[in-house]
Amino acid sequence: MKKNLKQEIIAIAKEAKAASASLAILSSAQKCAVLKDMAAALLRQETAILKANRKDILKSHAKSKAFVERLTLDKSRIKQMADSLLSIADLKDPVDEVMRAWNTSSGLSIQKVRSPLGVVAIIYESRPNVTADCIGLCFKSGNSVILRGGSEALNSNLEIFNVLQEVMQKYNLAKGSINLVSTSDRKAVDYLLKLNDYIDVVIPRGGEELIKKVVKSSRIPVIKHYKGICHVYVDEEADLNMARNICLNAKLQRPGVCNAMESMLVHRDVAIRFLPRMLQEFREAGVEIRGCAFTKRIAKWVKLAAKKDYRTEYCDLILSVKVVENLDEAIAHINEYGSHHSDSIVTDNNIAAAKFLKQVDSACVYLNASTRFTDGNQFGMGAEIGISTDKLHARGPMALEELTTYKYLIYGAGQVRV
Amino acid sequence: MKKNLKQEIIAIAKEAKAASASLAILSSAQKCAVLKDMAAALLRQETAILKANRKDILKSHAKSKAFVERLTLDKSRIKQMADSLLSIADLKDPVDEVMRAWNTSSGLSIQKVRSPLGVVAIIYESRPNVTADCIGLCFKSGNSVILRGGSEALNSNLEIFNVLQEVMQKYNLAKGSINLVSTSDRKAVDYLLKLNDYIDVVIPRGGEELIKKVVKSSRIPVIKHYKGICHVYVDEEADLNMARNICLNAKLQRPGVCNAMESMLVHRDVAIRFLPRMLQEFREAGVEIRGCAFTKRIAKWVKLAAKKDYRTEYCDLILSVKVVENLDEAIAHINEYGSHHSDSIVTDNNIAAAKFLKQVDSACVYLNASTRFTDGNQFGMGAEIGISTDKLHARGPMALEELTTYKYLIYGAGQVRV
Repeated sequence: MKKNLKQEIIAIAKEAKAASASLAILSSAQKCAVLKDMAAALLRQETAILKANRKDILKSHAKSKAFVERLTLDKSRIKQMADSLLSIADLKDPVDEVMRAWNTSSGLSIQKVRSPLGVVAIIYESRPNVTADCIGLCFKSGNSVILRGGSEALNSNLEIFNVLQEVMQKYNLAKGSINLVSTSDRKAVDYLLKLNDYIDVVIPRGGEELIKKVVKSSRIPVIKHYKGICHVYVDEEADLNMARNICLNAKLQRPGVCNAMESMLVHRDVAIRFLPRMLQEFREAGVEIRGCAFTKRIAKWVKLAAKKDYRTEYCDLILSVKVVENLDEAIAHINEYGSHHSDSIVTDNNIAAAKFLKQVDSACVYLNASTRFTDGNQFGMGAEIGISTDKLHARGPMALEELTTYKYLIYGAGQVRV
Repeated sequence: MKKNLKQEIIAIAKEAKAASASLAILSSAQKCAVLKDMAAALLRQETAILKANRKDILKSHAKSKAFVERLTLDKSRIKQMADSLLSIADLKDPVDEVMRAWNTSSGLSIQKVRSPLGVVAIIYESRPNVTADCIGLCFKSGNSVILRGGSEALNSNLEIFNVLQEVMQKYNLAKGSINLVSTSDRKAVDYLLKLNDYIDVVIPRGGEELIKKVVKSSRIPVIKHYKGICHVYVDEEADLNMARNICLNAKLQRPGVCNAMESMLVHRDVAIRFLPRMLQEFREAGVEIRGCAFTKRIAKWVKLAAKKDYRTEYCDLILSVKVVENLDEAIAHINEYGSHHSDSIVTDNNIAAAKFLKQVDSACVYLNASTRFTDGNQFGMGAEIGISTDKLHARGPMALEELTTYKYLIYGAGQVRV
């Protein structure tokens, strides 16, 4: 039985690899037509998708409200999935873009050309919309995709997948172009992660535990972010009203996501003016504050932060606060305790801003804006396939370009090396 | 004792990480001055370097001639090292280059800016010039570097390293900016490869065994190529004289390197015209031919190739030859048996050329030129730090840009997400 599963996973990966060669040579117009048809098919099959989703929801009764919320589809969410495919259809095709072209002294003409990676595996949890988004982005970038969603959303994912696969078949595209591992046997992931001969990259999307597990057992390169410990630093020359708005937004607009603020740093020279009202507002919004000794002196009800609070992604209405001596301490704290995801400085001082932007070692560094903008859509990339806090290949929001590699095409007229 | 070595390696990696922050903010002018001074210092210390090299050579008497040749320095090679540093000094600084800039609908101004990776570890064999090249390229790209050369070149590497470190000290640069692991204990590499908290990328340079070992035990992302099985495909519409020159050059100009031709494919419609003379010329040059049945029919002295011959990097005067039915078979053969390094088509047919360039899944794909041009210098990148057959991050020759990542700088005026 287990041997069968392993063979099955290998067969999927081989088929995906074989299909990738034919995807790489599709024209932009062909891909666009397929994606638009996929969007229409999702809307047409709305009832079937909602029915499948209902099955998943019924099984999830013991789970948290947030969990069920993430899992649940309705008409408007299906519309969003379809809209997302339409917007991917309209995005610029990254494949075959000439990134650079030059001539060498030996008379060769070299082009650096964007090409598909080949086969992309995505391992994700809960949200069924990820299924459609990832199929759309991988297809548009000329890659085969192997999806492995969470068992809690299996019926929804399978129905969405089948609807989209039907469209692929209508266009006579290789079946291996899109794949869903539909067993809930956890061994399937272990097998998948060993297939570096067929799969070019793995993108895990979900909680830190899932991602750690993938990194530990994968022989395939992984692009990932473990967590988002995002900071807002309120500088001594901050516009304090702007700082207040940014901090409230970064913490409260959607506390459960990776680009929400988890830690607020305040320059000591504005702490007395800024913190009393700010802390009170957070308190009234139901936010638990874990602060340094200075913060606690300003508001007695503040809990004293342990060191590990500054390393914690709460994804909840909890905020760590620290008063710092100066900009250097803020930068050092962020680089030491943060997760290299998204960090913001609020200041009117250009020199402080430039220093912060340069020296904070994060994927996205903001001046006078909320960290909540770290997102492929907000960045104008169209849908997003994930956010990377890695430094190799892709950093920050990942969309079509990040799903490509490049190759060098070298045009000669008989040149040989002397 | 072993515990001490582990602590020592961790200390080196930590120092390198700490130093990387200060390297990232050096100006181009500062880096240029240091590199030029390094070049001068190498020439000034020529005698000491040659003396150290002599010690390594004396220990290598049991090794092959090629091995000793790679190890040996002389005045002209030291001059080449110095020239290489001078040319790196003159290359465009990749750090802080704005790769793209745009405004979002929310009024944010986003810059995608090139930044150093942080800490680069390089594990290499034999050639002592790699020491100077890698220090130069990593320093110019704002990265700390940890070098681990082969024990056979330890004295040479150490002397070159000390000369360059002295220059770094003269400019008061952090000692951890450049590091050489100078023990010959093999455990040192194992320890190093676990330090993914401090080291951002490992680049192994050497034989397939070394690289496999690094990949297997590394927790740090690795950029590499295992081997170079490069093909020249002589199309039915090839200029056969050009094909002859290219094949001779690709095989013979330097047979021991990764971009030399290991396998020659010939369209069956030109095989009778092309192969008899070509095979004879290779024979006269001392090349052993391992060919398919068709090839053997053309020249009886040809050895019949086993399947594994087409997967072998000989690095020697041996060539596998195959006659193929058509372009499709040539492409399929290269993608199946090759190493995705460098492959060339010789043809006057534009359609065949375009298909080959598009569908051969290799880092460098050539039309009417020798595969021997796959090289950072030949590509006009200045010195090269290695060649990648990976698809993530860097593919093909790697130099300064490939030693960088990027970050997004986002300039706002108080924007919050709605």
